Amino acid sequence: MANIDSKPMKPYLKESQNYKALGDISSIIDLKGECRGSIGLSFSTNCILTVANQMLGENFKELDDEIADMVGELVNMISGDARRQLVKLGFSFSAGIPKIRQGVDHELKHSVNERVIVIPFNTSAGEFYIETCFDSRKFLE
Amino acid sequence: MANIDSKPMKPYLKESQNYKALGDISSIIDLKGECRGSIGLSFSTNCILTVANQMLGENFKELDDEIADMVGELVNMISGDARRQLVKLGFSFSAGIPKIRQGVDHELKHSVNERVIVIPFNTSAGEFYIETCFDSRKFLE
Repeated sequence: MANIDSKPMKPYLKESQNYKALGDISSIIDLKGECRGSIGLSFSTNCILTVANQMLGENFKELDDEIADMVGELVNMISGDARRQLVKLGFSFSAGIPKIRQGVDHELKHSVNERVIVIPFNTSAGEFYIETCFDSRKFLE
Repeated sequence: MANIDSKPMKPYLKESQNYKALGDISSIIDLKGECRGSIGLSFSTNCILTVANQMLGENFKELDDEIADMVGELVNMISGDARRQLVKLGFSFSAGIPKIRQGVDHELKHSVNERVIVIPFNTSAGEFYIETCFDSRKFLE
């Protein structure tokens, strides 16, 4: 939608209890259904400003309420896409409403106390990160 | 849910183009369907702190991210209730995601440029306001 190429990098596990967000502005959405979990999204300032300028056709220079709303909309869309894919596999989830966090040292707290998988993405405007954290033990039993 | 009595006062129309929120922290959610519109919610600081302390069983002293999330959840629940009532009347709406606003002179911008109906509520902890703004002309034609 933003017409920016993004390249997924190698996923990795975040250290336990490390809630520090990887970007400057983040959003997180809870999912419930087959199991509980959450999906987070975190952008460097430069990356989200570029995305916002491309998507909204404006010339944002700094983070503001409108950008924060967009970061919430984006995690909502990503979780919607994920849910549609998961339904095809027979797993049904409902989503909560996005929470937005920003500022120095802001945290991204997932809804369950499990390991957090981070998928970094590179773009020409800087990096962003998708985090997922699910209580998937019931699938492994 | 908060175990606080609230008394609806007389509704009134906000002046045109007056977007200034009536409380200290607010949320707004867009609705689409039979027509377009939005529902807003705005709390005085004392009112939302009391609601939060009752609902979450904590002792909040000032507005923070958790309170902001709750103000978003509340407008989401109110719009959900409204949508369920409207469906019974044959009107179907879908809701967007809540946007949160706070701070001195923050604004509550509705999704359509129509008159805003304000319903003030009195509680023992201070006032809060529900605002609705809908492009209902098609119903009046």
